[in-house]
Amino acid sequence: MENSKNPLSADFTLGFLGAGQLARMSALQAFRYGIQVGVFSDRPENEPVQFMTPHAEVGSYKSAEDLTAFAQTCDVLTLENEFIDSEILAQAQENSGTPIYPSPECFARIENKLIEKQTFENADIAVTPYKLIKDEEDLRSFGKKHSWPYMLKSSKGGYDGYGNETVNNLDEAIVAFENLGGHSDRDIIGEAFVDFSHELAVQVARNETGHVVYPCCETVQKDHICVALKTPAPVDKDIRKKAQSIAVQAMEAIDAKGIMAFEFFLTTKGKLLLNESAPRPHNSGHYSIEGCYTSQFENHVRAVMGLPLGSAALRKPAVAMINLLGNHERNAQVDHAMDSLKVSDGHLHIYGKLDSRPGRKMGHYTLLGDDLNTTYKRAQRLTEEIVI
Amino acid sequence: MENSKNPLSADFTLGFLGAGQLARMSALQAFRYGIQVGVFSDRPENEPVQFMTPHAEVGSYKSAEDLTAFAQTCDVLTLENEFIDSEILAQAQENSGTPIYPSPECFARIENKLIEKQTFENADIAVTPYKLIKDEEDLRSFGKKHSWPYMLKSSKGGYDGYGNETVNNLDEAIVAFENLGGHSDRDIIGEAFVDFSHELAVQVARNETGHVVYPCCETVQKDHICVALKTPAPVDKDIRKKAQSIAVQAMEAIDAKGIMAFEFFLTTKGKLLLNESAPRPHNSGHYSIEGCYTSQFENHVRAVMGLPLGSAALRKPAVAMINLLGNHERNAQVDHAMDSLKVSDGHLHIYGKLDSRPGRKMGHYTLLGDDLNTTYKRAQRLTEEIVI
Repeated sequence: MENSKNPLSADFTLGFLGAGQLARMSALQAFRYGIQVGVFSDRPENEPVQFMTPHAEVGSYKSAEDLTAFAQTCDVLTLENEFIDSEILAQAQENSGTPIYPSPECFARIENKLIEKQTFENADIAVTPYKLIKDEEDLRSFGKKHSWPYMLKSSKGGYDGYGNETVNNLDEAIVAFENLGGHSDRDIIGEAFVDFSHELAVQVARNETGHVVYPCCETVQKDHICVALKTPAPVDKDIRKKAQSIAVQAMEAIDAKGIMAFEFFLTTKGKLLLNESAPRPHNSGHYSIEGCYTSQFENHVRAVMGLPLGSAALRKPAVAMINLLGNHERNAQVDHAMDSLKVSDGHLHIYGKLDSRPGRKMGHYTLLGDDLNTTYKRAQRLTEEIVI
Repeated sequence: MENSKNPLSADFTLGFLGAGQLARMSALQAFRYGIQVGVFSDRPENEPVQFMTPHAEVGSYKSAEDLTAFAQTCDVLTLENEFIDSEILAQAQENSGTPIYPSPECFARIENKLIEKQTFENADIAVTPYKLIKDEEDLRSFGKKHSWPYMLKSSKGGYDGYGNETVNNLDEAIVAFENLGGHSDRDIIGEAFVDFSHELAVQVARNETGHVVYPCCETVQKDHICVALKTPAPVDKDIRKKAQSIAVQAMEAIDAKGIMAFEFFLTTKGKLLLNESAPRPHNSGHYSIEGCYTSQFENHVRAVMGLPLGSAALRKPAVAMINLLGNHERNAQVDHAMDSLKVSDGHLHIYGKLDSRPGRKMGHYTLLGDDLNTTYKRAQRLTEEIVI
């Protein structure tokens, strides 16, 4: 689908399916281009980006009708999560005539973790060892082959550790399989634990004008949640280049328009395995807002508007990003952030979520510097007192 | 007035009096801190920042009642123009209990061009030669003393050349005096033409935590409208330092909280004369969005929220900014901007005004580089084809 309207028009509307911080940070860039922002969410309560536009609709992600009605009020739509079936997206696109990027066809290639892995394997990209699990025998044999513990993952709808369970033995596996919906219509896959030294990530933006690839960063994880980023990743330069090259290959394999994030394991044997992909801006690219000449959000917006993409080169040799997770169940407010604001080239971002709860992603802090180790430690120190 | 609420709360609302591009670019920074944005405008049609919040009110700038009602829905208010009388602001602040920054008392010291000049003269700051004009005799004697032509300025409400007239002889002066409202309740001042080599500008942000001063830039003017900025200004380093120091002195003289811009003439004899001040973010500071570690908009928002201020140092040795003025009377759209987007560290900003007209400020383009002359010429070349 092509849109013949000049996207740099004051009445051009970019619609987001989803209303969280990724839509919010993308919307900040859309506004910079003088366009308007629409938002569609399945939650009646106020979400971050709904404070940023009078054009907000609430409906069901399962309703092609709701999505079509919203699509008709926008010039182009984009995703901020993976919660809408590609078939529903295809219907909304067809009925409204409003293009959606990444396209429903592209999204169909990765929306289901099983199909995603097959897609990338078919493009000669190494992925984490996995198997579709149908029954108890599969649970047992996967553990036997790849050793316990391993991961069980719902093929759809997971994020930040939700929809995933680590299983240490067959008994746990049977319970987890049930919990994840293995006896309903959900595909469940087993995924081997990989001995890895680092988790890495790379963003790629792509449209009909070309593509740009972001630096390879390390994602520091704790309890399956990304807590920090180090850019460039403190691994061999050739590994970073290789990860960038696989990311571009993956982007082309699914013919994506927009921005995508690709997450890798770097195994202890020095091999890169593609772990997950996300068809949207991603936490692992937040460092790019100030760290790169053109942020993942700006290139995302450019990509779906059909504009030329901007340079993803680093502004400084080192960029550290610390996720600010909620500490308390309370109305969201940020305490003890003053030190972080006083630092030159330190950048505080708060997402505007009304409610904080322990572990919820409430904001992030980015610090630019000349040396990665020093910059990372300094960023940690500057944020360790922050309470949200 | 002090506000005891933590400003970094998700339900904290920063209200803008005015809905144009300055509020819009400030709002982008407010959103980065996770807070909410309210906007009050006297125009029923949609203005740039009204697309960025569901919290928009329309009322009269002359009505303390309207302003009070809006103020009651916000935690702090700030100005984006000089169109509201300080007395009305004071009433709204008093009636609502919501603080306004810059404070009505501060604004009262500069809202009237005559009082502004007296304020700064009292602080030992050299200003452009001027005189309050009461009648034909004053018009004649001012021309005789300072030579023709000179400027007649309405003491209130002028911007971008509106409210100002150049008069070449007594006949023109008599007509202009009448046109500017000289026989109504308006004070009209005569202002001598100054032989200058450059027009310079400096921003200062200030609150209870301290102040930061921005680099001194050159404002390139054409027909009384700023068309471009060069930063740092291509004048002697001591002149730039002097301008920064006068700007801080001026800021303290009026005890301002928020951000202000100070515009200077550098006379052909090497003297700095303070020409105008603006109690808000200003076109002459737009280069700072990418050019400085902390933009004028971010420090404005920080200042009025009572947060520590960030570094105003330049990211690169040279920053050029080109204003993108409307070319045609038409629905706003930007043509031929693609080249400007392809350049690393070139940044396009469009303000979201629905209607373009010749000379209207529709956006700007900022380019960072190592050498001012090269960077400025390149920015001009990259924007010369743009049509809005």
